Amino acid sequence: MVDTARTMTDGTTADGAPAPIEAPADSSAVRVDTEALGRQLLGTWADARLASRKLAGRPEMQRIEGQSKEEHRERVFGQLKLLVENGQVLRAFPSAQGGQDDHGGNIAGFEELVSADPSLQIKSGVQWGLFAAAILHLGTEYHHEAFLPGAMNLDVPGAFAMTEIGHGSDVASVATTATYDEATQEFVINTPFRAAWKEFLGNAAVHGTAATVFAQLITKGVNHGVHALYVPIRDENGEFLPGVGGEDDGLKGGLNGIDNGRLHFSNVRVPRVNLLNRYGDVAEDGTYTSPIASPGRRFFTMLGTLVQGRVSLDGAATAASAMGLAIAITYGSQRRQFTAGSDTDEEVILDYQRHQRRLLPLLATTYAATFAHDEFLVKFDSVFSGTADSDADREDLETLAAALKPLSTWHALDTLQEAREACGGAGFMASNRLVGLRADLDVFVTFEGDNNVLLQLVAKRLLTDYSKKFAKADPAALARLVASQAADRAYHGSGLRSLAQTVADFGSTARSVDHLRDENSQRELLTDRVETMIAGVAGALREARHMSKADAAAAFNAQQNELIEAARAHGELLQWEAFTRALDKWDESTDPGTTQVLTWLRDLFGLGLIEKHAAWYLINGRLSPQRAQSLTAYIDRLLTRIRPHAVDLVNAFGYGPEHLRAPIASGIEQERQDEARAYYAEQRASGTAPLDEKVLAKQAAKAAKAAAAASVPKKQGKPSSKPGRPTATAAAK
Amino acid sequence: MVDTARTMTDGTTADGAPAPIEAPADSSAVRVDTEALGRQLLGTWADARLASRKLAGRPEMQRIEGQSKEEHRERVFGQLKLLVENGQVLRAFPSAQGGQDDHGGNIAGFEELVSADPSLQIKSGVQWGLFAAAILHLGTEYHHEAFLPGAMNLDVPGAFAMTEIGHGSDVASVATTATYDEATQEFVINTPFRAAWKEFLGNAAVHGTAATVFAQLITKGVNHGVHALYVPIRDENGEFLPGVGGEDDGLKGGLNGIDNGRLHFSNVRVPRVNLLNRYGDVAEDGTYTSPIASPGRRFFTMLGTLVQGRVSLDGAATAASAMGLAIAITYGSQRRQFTAGSDTDEEVILDYQRHQRRLLPLLATTYAATFAHDEFLVKFDSVFSGTADSDADREDLETLAAALKPLSTWHALDTLQEAREACGGAGFMASNRLVGLRADLDVFVTFEGDNNVLLQLVAKRLLTDYSKKFAKADPAALARLVASQAADRAYHGSGLRSLAQTVADFGSTARSVDHLRDENSQRELLTDRVETMIAGVAGALREARHMSKADAAAAFNAQQNELIEAARAHGELLQWEAFTRALDKWDESTDPGTTQVLTWLRDLFGLGLIEKHAAWYLINGRLSPQRAQSLTAYIDRLLTRIRPHAVDLVNAFGYGPEHLRAPIASGIEQERQDEARAYYAEQRASGTAPLDEKVLAKQAAKAAKAAAAASVPKKQGKPSSKPGRPTATAAAK
Repeated sequence: MVDTARTMTDGTTADGAPAPIEAPADSSAVRVDTEALGRQLLGTWADARLASRKLAGRPEMQRIEGQSKEEHRERVFGQLKLLVENGQVLRAFPSAQGGQDDHGGNIAGFEELVSADPSLQIKSGVQWGLFAAAILHLGTEYHHEAFLPGAMNLDVPGAFAMTEIGHGSDVASVATTATYDEATQEFVINTPFRAAWKEFLGNAAVHGTAATVFAQLITKGVNHGVHALYVPIRDENGEFLPGVGGEDDGLKGGLNGIDNGRLHFSNVRVPRVNLLNRYGDVAEDGTYTSPIASPGRRFFTMLGTLVQGRVSLDGAATAASAMGLAIAITYGSQRRQFTAGSDTDEEVILDYQRHQRRLLPLLATTYAATFAHDEFLVKFDSVFSGTADSDADREDLETLAAALKPLSTWHALDTLQEAREACGGAGFMASNRLVGLRADLDVFVTFEGDNNVLLQLVAKRLLTDYSKKFAKADPAALARLVASQAADRAYHGSGLRSLAQTVADFGSTARSVDHLRDENSQRELLTDRVETMIAGVAGALREARHMSKADAAAAFNAQQNELIEAARAHGELLQWEAFTRALDKWDESTDPGTTQVLTWLRDLFGLGLIEKHAAWYLINGRLSPQRAQSLTAYIDRLLTRIRPHAVDLVNAFGYGPEHLRAPIASGIEQERQDEARAYYAEQRASGTAPLDEKVLAKQAAKAAKAAAAASVPKKQGKPSSKPGRPTATAAAK
Repeated sequence: MVDTARTMTDGTTADGAPAPIEAPADSSAVRVDTEALGRQLLGTWADARLASRKLAGRPEMQRIEGQSKEEHRERVFGQLKLLVENGQVLRAFPSAQGGQDDHGGNIAGFEELVSADPSLQIKSGVQWGLFAAAILHLGTEYHHEAFLPGAMNLDVPGAFAMTEIGHGSDVASVATTATYDEATQEFVINTPFRAAWKEFLGNAAVHGTAATVFAQLITKGVNHGVHALYVPIRDENGEFLPGVGGEDDGLKGGLNGIDNGRLHFSNVRVPRVNLLNRYGDVAEDGTYTSPIASPGRRFFTMLGTLVQGRVSLDGAATAASAMGLAIAITYGSQRRQFTAGSDTDEEVILDYQRHQRRLLPLLATTYAATFAHDEFLVKFDSVFSGTADSDADREDLETLAAALKPLSTWHALDTLQEAREACGGAGFMASNRLVGLRADLDVFVTFEGDNNVLLQLVAKRLLTDYSKKFAKADPAALARLVASQAADRAYHGSGLRSLAQTVADFGSTARSVDHLRDENSQRELLTDRVETMIAGVAGALREARHMSKADAAAAFNAQQNELIEAARAHGELLQWEAFTRALDKWDESTDPGTTQVLTWLRDLFGLGLIEKHAAWYLINGRLSPQRAQSLTAYIDRLLTRIRPHAVDLVNAFGYGPEHLRAPIASGIEQERQDEARAYYAEQRASGTAPLDEKVLAKQAAKAAKAAAAASVPKKQGKPSSKPGRPTATAAAK
């Protein structure tokens, strides 16, 4: 894509050792078009994002650090009302209810609220993305008319009562029951034991007056699995209705603007029509019917309508990563610490290799996640708008959500933490935002599907696809396949993805990093790893179908870690591909600078993944030791090339001071540094600086040495005892 | 050490592929002596730890979650007064001042306060470990008599005014000046510009009435470098004294029980005798004298007296890791989720391989860090008690502190985060402690020396030791050495540590994991890595001494990441060695169970490190691909062996419910699970359970299939399309 990058000197010498890294004289000569890049980063629903960012930039929508949880909860509830006034929340709903049927734009807008206050974003998600969305997607016309208006305009704040204390990610096992009583044509809702209390529900502690309650639907003595019912829970005075009880979850690690709480039900009766009956209904006489015959597929379909939570977490987490990096990289480009190459000026900390190593790969990953998220949102929109909503589309969307949400939410925590550490003590101050964002986003990795559980879901899908592919093969071919795999580990299987080209044995043919810089090599290495890992697990499990249930479970469990790592590798590949497709949209002839810098950044992402998993590539013969080593040297070089563009790359995210609101990213550090340097420069110029005892001592020592040298013959070529002149106190000089 | 472990089936088959992992039938048969192990974990100052834990178990010493920062600050200040009453704080001070000269016991006791509230621990550290300790260690008799009593009994709460906004880890560059005025025999303290404001000082925002101020000492026009002065800052009404100003740092990411703030000085005058003059004094006429001629060594010595901050962070971080694991592993051993191997009972989550992979290696590391900390504390005590306090001892102590503090504080954050995630939503509740501990400990990784800066200090020491070793070699030998290194990468250099035995080329001779299980193999692999990395950097820097200052700095910077990784590897080796020495104290003949389980745990730690750095070992020919792969398989087996002992291993840390205070670790989860299982068991027994539509559907399908099979000839050997019976919805069943 960018010839300059390819034709530069190889990262290794002939013997494979890293060559000395020259300063990248040309890398700062190119320019990034931050405006055009910014437009690309905003993605398909740029207008919705910009409108939401404008709203998020208003002080009344923003978090006030240090509020008590009670104050914070009330503030956020008030902000939700502002959202209603603004009309923003209606976007996803049907035109019949005054909405715009704009699913992608709706999510894009919600995500951007994270810059105002993650509690605002998540409480909005509870009200409109879960409570109201359950009414919309699981209910039918009656519910849309009876319940949706109140949910939409916040007259009825609602809880989404799915999770129980005893069952988080395992929704199918919730223990709350909704038993149909033919005599009264009511459902009777019960919490059979303590573990079945509904738990962690936003709006449950204070504000909610109704809930969509997920319960095992029992009629005529048969349990038809989990269904949702609309259940009023509080009266107009905020008191629990008869049979309903609950508790406040109290203080949490973050998101304290949301009133999470617990609910339980004792013989709470609701009319038959309160069953959200799109995917399963009970007639007056208690007869159960469903448009989906298979209970498993019905459950999957019902839960699938709620995928938007995962979509928006993916986007909000990535936005928070971008903000964290904007703060840390701005600060790192102004902050100076320790003199190294100069007698007077301290170094800008982003010029230190370690600092680059800490932040720039995270920047590359944030770009990848941003591009991947936009593709994900397009997929979501096509399913929910009905333009492409086959079962296969829905399954692909689910798998995409399960692959991307874990990666981006973990990435956000890693990024915000590294950003906070990279800003030192200043990063720990609440005013600089990093600790608060991290605390609020912490729960993103376990809610809306625990990340590990989601990745296991992805892995199972990859295994299913793999097995489907070979279902058509005859047994002898399958046996040969397994044998060849064990023998040379060079077989390249197929998972969800497949490749047109055969992957070569890189280990034995490689001579330089050229190959690694090549886009196709990166793709092949990343794809190959997913496929080989899945094929390996499939091989290890091929006897499991003959086993007892307990033995098969044990065999599966012995592969669990590998499976989850394979799913992660799959997600990383999806991010890399999205980045590469985004890169393809740039034209080197019209914008060589941006194309070049983005190519470096994509390479940093791709090669960073390969470096992270280098042991796997080495063990499996995909990389030779020389190449793996030159990989690290080349990444070091990419860091120095990207360094001059780091500030442009975070500015392109487009977050203004009204979003970042971190004093250390406001230019204040630059002012302080300039003031300090001017002070010392003036002292030196005016001769008012005190003499330095250290300098005086060195001068004295030098004079003494010169006197001694004049009287003693010089020794020949004595080796230095101090490479790099290190001393134990050098770092504290 | 433990034959049983060695003689079990190899982790690999003949061709190097991982063998299927059987359930470790024998591993739960052995027993851990938790009481004896607990005594060992308490370490050398067990009594001081137990006394402090007893104190920390008192409700009035403990954190109340959800307090405002103002309430929290006052509560912690009150707790400090309780500590004074308790007499605990006097332990480290001289008998002349009513202390006990017990340096190790003092630190051990302080560390354990972390279980009550990290704010209490750190505010104590500010008052007695920094402010009072500076008076003690940097001052002389006058200061001990005039200022120490008030600092000790909290009549004078004090700030330790070292860090400035512009200079954190680079203490030597602080810009505050203390200029001697011969006319009045006073020091004049000034803050020359905004970046020189003292920053992040505990006690500065509210409570402090004095400070030990670190400033460039200038007399007779010469700057003698950083010295500390005792400076009153507030009057009896809490108002700043003339010339002193400041600000409250406000809310932080944690530790909000401490009133951190900023201070600045405008012509603040203190008497000449307020200079803490142990290492540098100014006579009435302005003449500067010091017992240490070299300004660099003087600075190093002064800062060295303050190493106890790093010591206590290492211990407190490790204690917090132990508490986090006690909570998560207790919960994980009671919590059940998803049925896998049974139709009725859900699996205990700690039985999932992934859950073990997430928590047990962290447990192994916490053991290693605990044992390493005790050795560190012994070293600290010997230096500070004067039994072994040569310059070399002090330097070794500094290096040890700089190596261990980064590892244990990062480990604590990783552990508390993984523990929180492993407890799902419950882990996010403040009541379960994990999020609060993590938030409070966050700043441990950047204060008392930024972790990256400290590791660089370690690396420079390793480089210095390396170069000293070869300073005696003749140039030709050195050249040959460098050449042989480049050629076969098999040279094993020497850093701070050296080895009696030569390290073999593991890559070409390995056939099984036996070698890896061997203690000496682990030591050799870990040692070799440190030495080879340091030798590699030394080689890369050997030309730097001929370069300009700027070029040399650039050359050094190009090695910075590798250097820091080498220092980390050195710290990991120190931890591994401490674990191994602790293990050596167990006698297999008298306690085979504990010896065996601890051996597995040490192996998990050591092999975990080797697995983490497997790419390095592969690239450098220290591990063959087969061996690297069998390593992972063997670690998987270790996990299943250690699993039955996990609860014993966390119980051995000895933290009671009064320390953990996490409902999820109280047994409440077990009660809920038992209640739920009893409910379903009773339903099954009484026949009152509703029928399951899913089961009915399966029975119907089976019946239909049987009918079809009876009429159609069976196909031969059709391969299964579903290895391990995965389905896309399986995880959500």
